[in-house]
Amino acid sequence: MRASELGVIDGHLTIGGVDAVKLVERYRTPLYVTDENQVRERFRAFKDAFSGVKSEIYYAMKANGNLAILKILESEGAGVDVFSAGELYMALLAGFPREKILFNGNSKTDEELELAVEAGVTVSVDSLDELEALAQIAKRLGKRSSIAFRVNPDISPKTHPKISTGIRTSKFGIPHTEVMDAYRRAWELDGLDIKGIHCHIGSQILELGVFGEVMERMMNLVEEIKDELGIRLEFLDIGGGLGVAYREDDPAPTPHDLADVVLPVFKGRCKEAGVSPTLILEPGRYIVADSTVLLTRVNTVKRAYKNFVATDAGFNLLARPVLYGSYHRIVVANKMDLPPEETYTIVGPICESGDILGEDRRLPKIEKGDILAILDTGAYGFSMSSQYNQRPRCAEVLVSDGRVELIREEESVGDLMMRQRIPDRLL
Amino acid sequence: MRASELGVIDGHLTIGGVDAVKLVERYRTPLYVTDENQVRERFRAFKDAFSGVKSEIYYAMKANGNLAILKILESEGAGVDVFSAGELYMALLAGFPREKILFNGNSKTDEELELAVEAGVTVSVDSLDELEALAQIAKRLGKRSSIAFRVNPDISPKTHPKISTGIRTSKFGIPHTEVMDAYRRAWELDGLDIKGIHCHIGSQILELGVFGEVMERMMNLVEEIKDELGIRLEFLDIGGGLGVAYREDDPAPTPHDLADVVLPVFKGRCKEAGVSPTLILEPGRYIVADSTVLLTRVNTVKRAYKNFVATDAGFNLLARPVLYGSYHRIVVANKMDLPPEETYTIVGPICESGDILGEDRRLPKIEKGDILAILDTGAYGFSMSSQYNQRPRCAEVLVSDGRVELIREEESVGDLMMRQRIPDRLL
Ligand SMILES: Cc1ncc(COP(=O)(O)O)c(C=O)c1O
Ligand SMILES: Cc1ncc(COP(=O)(O)O)c(C=O)c1O
Repeated sequence: MRASELGVIDGHLTIGGVDAVKLVERYRTPLYVTDENQVRERFRAFKDAFSGVKSEIYYAMKANGNLAILKILESEGAGVDVFSAGELYMALLAGFPREKILFNGNSKTDEELELAVEAGVTVSVDSLDELEALAQIAKRLGKRSSIAFRVNPDISPKTHPKISTGIRTSKFGIPHTEVMDAYRRAWELDGLDIKGIHCHIGSQILELGVFGEVMERMMNLVEEIKDELGIRLEFLDIGGGLGVAYREDDPAPTPHDLADVVLPVFKGRCKEAGVSPTLILEPGRYIVADSTVLLTRVNTVKRAYKNFVATDAGFNLLARPVLYGSYHRIVVANKMDLPPEETYTIVGPICESGDILGEDRRLPKIEKGDILAILDTGAYGFSMSSQYNQRPRCAEVLVSDGRVELIREEESVGDLMMRQRIPDRLL
Repeated sequence: MRASELGVIDGHLTIGGVDAVKLVERYRTPLYVTDENQVRERFRAFKDAFSGVKSEIYYAMKANGNLAILKILESEGAGVDVFSAGELYMALLAGFPREKILFNGNSKTDEELELAVEAGVTVSVDSLDELEALAQIAKRLGKRSSIAFRVNPDISPKTHPKISTGIRTSKFGIPHTEVMDAYRRAWELDGLDIKGIHCHIGSQILELGVFGEVMERMMNLVEEIKDELGIRLEFLDIGGGLGVAYREDDPAPTPHDLADVVLPVFKGRCKEAGVSPTLILEPGRYIVADSTVLLTRVNTVKRAYKNFVATDAGFNLLARPVLYGSYHRIVVANKMDLPPEETYTIVGPICESGDILGEDRRLPKIEKGDILAILDTGAYGFSMSSQYNQRPRCAEVLVSDGRVELIREEESVGDLMMRQRIPDRLL
């Protein structure tokens, strides 16, 4: 959320109308707290922005796969992008309609393809190998499979290389120069229904101009497929990627800004070509990132070569800083009315030097026991968490209009041991 | 293991005398496979190397906390370095003697300190804040606590910055220039028994000269503590960090090489100072890294701008490459007798471009269904794993002299849901 949207009452941070300090008294730290209304609002903003054309918003659940959050988005009319058998399972469990589920992935097992065919969801096919496997599986199961191809459009957004997925050397998709061959081959094979075309160029994109290029390139293919194979695709899915303002002074593009870039091209080219595919967007980060804070308690303040504040959450719970050097704003949840006074480096409890949550932050004077809130942690936060250093993962709660609901219980050491087996002879 | 130690029978990779292809037929992929004898050998090599002095080897269980592996090392006479309440719990469960457990960590909660005091294990105190907290807790519990201080020696090994822990700006320890104040303060406080001194300068260190410097610096402190406070420390713990040869042509220093660097200084300085502390080493990586392979199946081979081989294991199971750009050798477990023929980039199934296990590797011609073995994955492999993209984590098996034992069951989607709760009103 924008800092201006953070609630403060009596010097305490509030989220969804709930006092963060009270929350950790009840649920302990670390704690992920998600504001339901924020998730709903962000989703609606996306839906609105594209309501001028036939469109669907498929939530990319990899960003945050909590079942309660899936249920919320399902109730808002979202579809869903799934990336594994586990995600498909969760999506079906959360009640998403199968016709609004797209099964993505660059490395699907035969089992996953079988599941997709059995479930009757559309598969975004990533390679010719996969195409042949899928056709065989559909045949064996006596079913038909709806497909799209994931295109590598060879377009480079400005973002972190680890999440730039549509550049030439990325592992994802079929080079756009070769994708026509794939459609031709799919056309020859039995049991496949060619439904759409798909791409996703990367994540955390703040300069939206590149989406205009993407739309042009994808519409070239839509047209070529119609002209050459006589197929009018039912959908064009341009993926996710809309970034959020992690820093106060980052640009904060909205779904409307995105629509302003892509819709004119989309409408114009559709009209020219005489086609009318449904436009699909697959936002993940934008829907959930700023709905959530990670609350963590200060264990130690140490004046060494730097001023360190050591908390009980580290890259076990929030991997983005160590993975991408990402920035998250941090506030002192129990000292919201105090001015910044010192410069601190906030570090977690993990055994590696890279376990830094924020460097050189100006904050009010911090003491042991203070509660820090790490902002905008709803996307790629809990979903990337681990039990590294044998740390059971923390709880998640949902807040809305003053109501608090536990949506994931804290793990215990029992969870660490649950699947382990010690051979008798070693006991 | 060195490539020369990899077993091959009928063109198949063997580990601990067991055919890797047969293993995955039985346990599926991905699969972590650990050779028990290799773990024992590596541990014994360490023990041997330092047997000329009073010494203890404390296994750093963060590298691999599987209970069967802990049991194996406990049976070899290891002590253990623990870094959290969860690790302490596991160490006690595995039966390590409390007097051989050191509780480390830069950000311990009061609960963790309580646990440590109750369990009667020695605490490596990381800051003055922590010292005061520990003294209060010991007092409240009516117990005494044995302590050491973690020193930041301001010494920079040649390794990846994310795992370089003894440099000036690292979050760990008390600056060596200030540590005497800490000992003085501990001396004043009730309930604390000053037992030792501790440091750990980083991980994956292949140039060992730096350990000589570390020993000098630590012995300076040992001497100063004796001269000034009249305390003859019972132990000096110089941490872990001995690296392994992930690349064929990396240097492969041994524990004996490490002993050759540190023991002359240690012995000489002890004699001079008239002290005789136990020397403690805390190896993690060296003990387990090369005992283990990660077996993964090829789902797709794709000729795009690069030749991609997509497997069913990604950075969900092995985070080192994406985190540190680490190199792991990769072999085709079912084609060990075929010569390299093509150049492949091996990628996992995770939704990010950074999910690359090996770039531009010369390998035999690879087809869908082939089994790749990613070598030297016993340290910081499973222990850093996540369920990202809703992927249940894989099984672990232990092999030795042809015997196979399951030491961790594969997770299922049930594990992904287990702690989740959907509020009724959302159902
Ligand atoms: C295929 C696909 N679609 C959508 C997304 C969501 O991207 P974002 O969270 O940036 O909107 C991803 C992210 O990895 C993806 O791989
Ligand atoms: C305090 C401490 N000791 C020992 C180790 C083990 O290091 P290695 O695995 O490099 O031997 C670590 C690793 O993080 C550590 O933090």
